[in-house]
Amino acid sequence: MASKWGPDFAIRGSLNLTRRGHSILFSSRPVYFQSCPARAFTSSSRLRNVSNAATSRSEIPLGLFLWKRIRQLGVKSVMGLPGDMNLELLHYMKDANLNWVGNSNELNAAYAADGYSRIGGCTGVLLTTMAVGELSAINGIAGSYAENVKIVHVIAATGRKAQESKAVMHHTLGSSPNHRIYEKMSAPVRVAHCYLDDEKTAATEIDRVIHECHIHSRPVYIYVPVDMVHKPISTSSFDEPLLISRPESIEEARIKNSATEEVLSAIYSSKKPILLVDSHVLQFGAKSLVRDLAEKLQFPVFCPFMGKSIIEESKKYFYGTYNGKFSYPGVQEAVEDKSDLVIHLGPLPTDMNTGGFTAKVDPRKLISVEETRVIVRGKVFEGVYLKSFITALLSSLNTNKLPGPEPLTLPTPPTPTDLDTTQITQSYLWPRLGRFFRDGDIVFADGGTTHFGLQDATFPDITYVMQNHWASIGYATPAAFGGALAKRNELVEDEAGKTRGKGRVVLITGEGAIQLSVQEVGSMVKEGLPVIIIIINNGGYSIERCVIHPDAGYHDIATWDHNHMLEFFGVPDGVKRTHQVHTKDELETALELPEMKNPKGIQVLEIFTDKMDFPWRLKAFGRAYRDMKGQ
Amino acid sequence: MASKWGPDFAIRGSLNLTRRGHSILFSSRPVYFQSCPARAFTSSSRLRNVSNAATSRSEIPLGLFLWKRIRQLGVKSVMGLPGDMNLELLHYMKDANLNWVGNSNELNAAYAADGYSRIGGCTGVLLTTMAVGELSAINGIAGSYAENVKIVHVIAATGRKAQESKAVMHHTLGSSPNHRIYEKMSAPVRVAHCYLDDEKTAATEIDRVIHECHIHSRPVYIYVPVDMVHKPISTSSFDEPLLISRPESIEEARIKNSATEEVLSAIYSSKKPILLVDSHVLQFGAKSLVRDLAEKLQFPVFCPFMGKSIIEESKKYFYGTYNGKFSYPGVQEAVEDKSDLVIHLGPLPTDMNTGGFTAKVDPRKLISVEETRVIVRGKVFEGVYLKSFITALLSSLNTNKLPGPEPLTLPTPPTPTDLDTTQITQSYLWPRLGRFFRDGDIVFADGGTTHFGLQDATFPDITYVMQNHWASIGYATPAAFGGALAKRNELVEDEAGKTRGKGRVVLITGEGAIQLSVQEVGSMVKEGLPVIIIIINNGGYSIERCVIHPDAGYHDIATWDHNHMLEFFGVPDGVKRTHQVHTKDELETALELPEMKNPKGIQVLEIFTDKMDFPWRLKAFGRAYRDMKGQ
Repeated sequence: MASKWGPDFAIRGSLNLTRRGHSILFSSRPVYFQSCPARAFTSSSRLRNVSNAATSRSEIPLGLFLWKRIRQLGVKSVMGLPGDMNLELLHYMKDANLNWVGNSNELNAAYAADGYSRIGGCTGVLLTTMAVGELSAINGIAGSYAENVKIVHVIAATGRKAQESKAVMHHTLGSSPNHRIYEKMSAPVRVAHCYLDDEKTAATEIDRVIHECHIHSRPVYIYVPVDMVHKPISTSSFDEPLLISRPESIEEARIKNSATEEVLSAIYSSKKPILLVDSHVLQFGAKSLVRDLAEKLQFPVFCPFMGKSIIEESKKYFYGTYNGKFSYPGVQEAVEDKSDLVIHLGPLPTDMNTGGFTAKVDPRKLISVEETRVIVRGKVFEGVYLKSFITALLSSLNTNKLPGPEPLTLPTPPTPTDLDTTQITQSYLWPRLGRFFRDGDIVFADGGTTHFGLQDATFPDITYVMQNHWASIGYATPAAFGGALAKRNELVEDEAGKTRGKGRVVLITGEGAIQLSVQEVGSMVKEGLPVIIIIINNGGYSIERCVIHPDAGYHDIATWDHNHMLEFFGVPDGVKRTHQVHTKDELETALELPEMKNPKGIQVLEIFTDKMDFPWRLKAFGRAYRDMKGQ
Repeated sequence: MASKWGPDFAIRGSLNLTRRGHSILFSSRPVYFQSCPARAFTSSSRLRNVSNAATSRSEIPLGLFLWKRIRQLGVKSVMGLPGDMNLELLHYMKDANLNWVGNSNELNAAYAADGYSRIGGCTGVLLTTMAVGELSAINGIAGSYAENVKIVHVIAATGRKAQESKAVMHHTLGSSPNHRIYEKMSAPVRVAHCYLDDEKTAATEIDRVIHECHIHSRPVYIYVPVDMVHKPISTSSFDEPLLISRPESIEEARIKNSATEEVLSAIYSSKKPILLVDSHVLQFGAKSLVRDLAEKLQFPVFCPFMGKSIIEESKKYFYGTYNGKFSYPGVQEAVEDKSDLVIHLGPLPTDMNTGGFTAKVDPRKLISVEETRVIVRGKVFEGVYLKSFITALLSSLNTNKLPGPEPLTLPTPPTPTDLDTTQITQSYLWPRLGRFFRDGDIVFADGGTTHFGLQDATFPDITYVMQNHWASIGYATPAAFGGALAKRNELVEDEAGKTRGKGRVVLITGEGAIQLSVQEVGSMVKEGLPVIIIIINNGGYSIERCVIHPDAGYHDIATWDHNHMLEFFGVPDGVKRTHQVHTKDELETALELPEMKNPKGIQVLEIFTDKMDFPWRLKAFGRAYRDMKGQ
């Protein structure tokens, strides 16, 4: 069918046009795409099509147009569920060279799209049906909004006539239903939306919301009335590249320069500077830039809770986690008291990320590099954007003027008292898992004890995903599925054999958290993805047990037999692929198995721990949380 | 702990007070409670507490107050998931003699509360945490809104100070988060809500939203800031009963009388009347009233698609399903052409319920008895309520004046051509399942082929639950769990040994539909509920395969091995409790097994059918749907 609609389009290699008053930042190595998908568009095989694309003036159906535009973002897999209203839209996906995934439910699909975006570096895309589908997904989309993950949610709606006549279709509410009411429900968890009601404006509208998605790094919604799917749309806008970077005005450039000068001046005159590398560095795609900066500065680096893994932990200037008063001894003093300058990159001042709001740096010595502004010792530079600013800082930095601070001397962390047991304790478990990880691994951690426990692991150079701000339990299983899919998509094209392509995908979850979204294990099996699933079985919802009334029955959950999980999801030798360990010796043996080191297919490792044994950070947080609830 | 807060309260046996200008309809046999829970309040053991309750003037914590008030509605089990913000609220549940269920995820919990309400006849109650919990549940709540099911959704929110300071807590959105934004998102799927911000108004607010829940038969939201949970609240409002019936003004009574006269006059003068018994009869609790009415009238009765099971199908005046042009031969003519009066009780004119809007009765011969009005041959009586009107009609009806119409003569339905195969065909399967059902059974059907296929089964006197208007695939598994729990709660108290207490709970779902919400099978296992799970395995999403492009890959789903499902969810002899059948002989053998006839515990029956074999009604609907999408 592809030939019917003309040759596939490919984005041109290099552009520097002006459109609607904006300079277009898309180039042969676009800033946004630097992490991975740009390869697809700069390879010679793709470039061969450029002249065709530039001169073709055909029309294609709206549905196909939408998917082709999405494919141009580097997206290869689309999450979602089929539904009667989206079937016709679905049908054009193949012709746009997109892979339809087909998840087990819509919330899982949204989580998977989020994981896909975080690992793939491109937009996560989700297709659902109106009402039942989009509302099932909404908590996942809200998480992407909270954590600045790029998602395009495509929703197939009823036809325009049915909408106008307020037909009482299935999936509608009440006797004279507004078919667009759901769009109002999702308003707080997106930055833009459009209804593709008009074939004349559809192309512009699609481009507009994709632009908004990328500059804010947050979800957008595209509603497609089912009767619009086959309408012919001109492909002429394919000649213009998608505007996916934020345009910078002359005034903004001036402010950025002022901010850069001010920051450099503060850096050069400091004697005991500290660098804090935080969560928004990841979300706004500045990880490698910040690594370069840290390497140049050689300042002592701490990562707040959610910044973990952004800086390579083997670096001699890396000193661990800074989490206010819930840090190891000496850390809070080193950051807050003994420094004369604190550069905080990408701060996300949530309760958990600040040790229950106990992390407090004196504003008079603080440089805060945020999503849309830089604050230097109380002086605010608005409209300065994180990634753009760090790029400018890097290029202006004169390493000869840097202070060269002394290495820090921190007290030795307290030695756990329970290291000699045969049982697997929290204090033993998490550092051990840190040693299990390898460079290039991708680790998804669900929001239970794992987030707290893994802070005590020293990581090799892994990609670590934790949804700790939105903190929706059950997120990690589908997200790991999405991440594993993005990784596989990438591997197929990774001819350079980079390290990052070689790691494993590891999901660490609890026997409670996995229950919320377990069916996406079935999707991993369906796709043949070699995910290592580590289930920490501590007999209930430990994270909540630790907050209040630890013995209460409501912390208990249904007891599943994970030995049969893979069998149920269709793996005939599932029991052989499942290991259950109760002691340290058993754990050591399991972690050394060849199938755990280099999995050829899915693997399950269930680790049993005592239900009253909590990571120390979780205990501290539980206490703080009780005080913090506004009482 | 109960003693600390004084004796348990019980609603007084009989009341006829006036409060806020409303007459209170609550009596020793309240209209609303007639289906079941009233028993709890009228038994002598409960009445012994009345004098205590009437005179006690103690204060109890707000959390306990809320649960006690909910317990007074006849609710015994509360669905939901624990979360850090709702733990303190959860802790008071036991003292109110409520059973905390603990579901596997929040969407499932919402579905389960819906099923609990439909079977228990009382309100379904759901407790979640703010944001992640409530948004995960929202599609289930929307379904309850669409289908007029009573739900109280209690949400534990952050404390008031955190809300006022816009603290960046986990579960919040953005840098200066409005903690109440989620309340705006759910506005279209509820009829009332309150924030329990003030201990002085909390009691009144709780009563107000419970009242709204009951008179509209739709969901309400109660938000509890976590710092309010322990605030002392006076129990004095316990002296006044909950206002859960709609008060009737003198003017409304007058209009109702006029409508009754007009309807009686039309009935007495008719010669070929038809009675249509439709979905809202169920939702507004008028099933037994309507059965009485049908018995008195002895008019030919048809049930639209969603009205199936309301009328006993063994009655000689019952003639089957009326679904516009997707009815058996002769049905549409009998209803629309050959009648001179059509009384349509509880209409719900959705696309599926009207054969794709092809069911059309001439308004000049139509009496439509709707939720809040009666229309007699085009004359509208506003403010006349379904249940109240049918009660009035029954008491005014003079059976001597009834026309006594001739029995209908309808063509014999077409004989399926594939009855002789050994394979299990759609034409064979559904009538056979109809014969498997017994009086008193409760059958939950998921929204795939089952809704269409079961229309061809003749039912004994069962309770049949299908969520066909909202049509959210995956609904039935958690709903069946909720229904089975309500049934068990009821059984404990059923000293009279009524038939309805003796039936089985049967879930019929597809191998596609069950994937969306499968973890609630684990909840059935945890609670030891003897549900019979029948999985129709037709190799994908057949309902969508039938709509468009039947061979497309996106109709396929992950292949699970249901033989291991129960084992995974913790049933050691799960494989023995699972039967998989491919032929009619195997099906016959399985349906006759003692464990299927009288299950002592959970059972699974997986029935394999051909993926291109669809129920005839689904095929017809698929065709109509393609035409109906507003194109």
